[in-house]
Amino acid sequence: MTREFKHIAIIGIGLIGSSIAHAVRKNELADKITGYAKTDATRAKALELCLVDQICSTAADAVSGADLIILCSPVGSYAALSMEIMPALKAGAILTDVGSVKGAVVRDVLPHVPAGVHFIPGHPIAGTEQSGPEAGFAELFLNRWCILTPLADADPRAVERLTAFWRSCGSNVEIMTPEHHDLVLAITSHLPHLIAYNIVSTAADLEQVTSSEVIKYSAGGFRDFTRIAASDPTMWRDVFLNNKDAVLEMLGRFSEDLSALQRAIRWGDGETLFNIFSRSREVRRNIIAAGQDTAAPDFGRGGPKTQ
Amino acid sequence: MTREFKHIAIIGIGLIGSSIAHAVRKNELADKITGYAKTDATRAKALELCLVDQICSTAADAVSGADLIILCSPVGSYAALSMEIMPALKAGAILTDVGSVKGAVVRDVLPHVPAGVHFIPGHPIAGTEQSGPEAGFAELFLNRWCILTPLADADPRAVERLTAFWRSCGSNVEIMTPEHHDLVLAITSHLPHLIAYNIVSTAADLEQVTSSEVIKYSAGGFRDFTRIAASDPTMWRDVFLNNKDAVLEMLGRFSEDLSALQRAIRWGDGETLFNIFSRSREVRRNIIAAGQDTAAPDFGRGGPKTQ
Repeated sequence: MTREFKHIAIIGIGLIGSSIAHAVRKNELADKITGYAKTDATRAKALELCLVDQICSTAADAVSGADLIILCSPVGSYAALSMEIMPALKAGAILTDVGSVKGAVVRDVLPHVPAGVHFIPGHPIAGTEQSGPEAGFAELFLNRWCILTPLADADPRAVERLTAFWRSCGSNVEIMTPEHHDLVLAITSHLPHLIAYNIVSTAADLEQVTSSEVIKYSAGGFRDFTRIAASDPTMWRDVFLNNKDAVLEMLGRFSEDLSALQRAIRWGDGETLFNIFSRSREVRRNIIAAGQDTAAPDFGRGGPKTQ
Repeated sequence: MTREFKHIAIIGIGLIGSSIAHAVRKNELADKITGYAKTDATRAKALELCLVDQICSTAADAVSGADLIILCSPVGSYAALSMEIMPALKAGAILTDVGSVKGAVVRDVLPHVPAGVHFIPGHPIAGTEQSGPEAGFAELFLNRWCILTPLADADPRAVERLTAFWRSCGSNVEIMTPEHHDLVLAITSHLPHLIAYNIVSTAADLEQVTSSEVIKYSAGGFRDFTRIAASDPTMWRDVFLNNKDAVLEMLGRFSEDLSALQRAIRWGDGETLFNIFSRSREVRRNIIAAGQDTAAPDFGRGGPKTQ
């Protein structure tokens, strides 16, 4: 484990913020963790769970003296937070974040960053559908990817230090541009969440099938969509508002493809259906081969678990 | 455990057929299991795994003398199978199936059923994305629902005996009409599978994002869709071809709702997004309350498991 930072400040203590705190504690990545949360309840919970050494009622207080500052609140809050914390940042500090969009983060944060502070946007690709300070655990980032999107003029040494931090949390680190990140995440994360939210909403509005029937028979596939549709509404609202172009692009393609499937069903074109379904299987096999999921049956929840 | 049958015939030995065989063995629900599978390879595997006492190269041989016959092959095969097996059925035998659509099964099977044979369509709501004779396990049906759709003139005693069989496999049993079944399953199972297949297909066709990137970063949500999109292509082709009206109805509603979300994103309507996302959370909570899933984090695969 590399210890690059003495004092880490965590701004926003939800699932990701609390998981980072656990990972820092477990791997001894800092002497001191300060934290800021918007509500009294979360601040009290953060202390109770020993997530931080000191909890602050303003973000500016929390970042004061910190070597590494990690924004872990919904991305819609970053512009206001940036204005507030920038005067309190120590020269040489690294400012990063965990937001699910990166172009909008650069747009909202960069104009406020003073000379001498290293701003390196980041995004750990890890999560559960749980939220809040009690949802975190140290292993959340283990064997998951963390994408950093440093700007063209970023200090290589600062990027190295942040990379070492995420590796110490168990992650693999990849570097790309904010624009490319936003396209990749639009298809791998944002669109899946949007259509999961949508199908749950469609089901809730049916007249012919009751909500209790939908719930009762959800093991047929619906259940797996509700899991990701239970993710934090504020966070996801901000994701869609801040990655509009890439999400609309992917959604357009998805809808076109869905129309083609709809047409195949209407006209009884079994060959088209079979070919599309067969191809999907291959993608699944590749994900298992890449170590990003297990091959154990998970659907029936009764099968053997390999992890 | 109730032992209602001496000789059970399983026609088609994939995930469901092999799981029924395991459940019959484990719970001692019959003296004898005969089986039929289309290919030499599956027939050999069924014997090797001791799934059946006798494997037959024709379905007619397999059903001969059986008290309970369970069709477990893709629903598209039922019409031809019915014609073949009906002359070989014993008087008083119960003929059922496990197909994911029920209206089309009644259409394809009922005209061939001779007097004295009890035809009771059924559908255990359980599965994994695995397929084939090696994928089965006895606990697949445990605490899952099994829907029976007896016709109006069905013999109540025969329905009772089949209900007892499924209860002995660990399932809860519900009775409804074939038409209502097909609507309920269209939203809880068929549409989820269709949109999962579709998003995987959309992702495979992108130019801006490579397939290896989709796979690498799939933990952000995409991964959970690929799991159900890895389900058996032949079975699912037959489902969509045989539940066309209900699937097209649900798909129409889904697409309308998705257009509304798309519009909210385009116009930056955060309130609409937040309200829809918040409501989805409630559905998830109700599914957990109904015992149809666990609340344990499953997304990151690193969280604690309660089951």
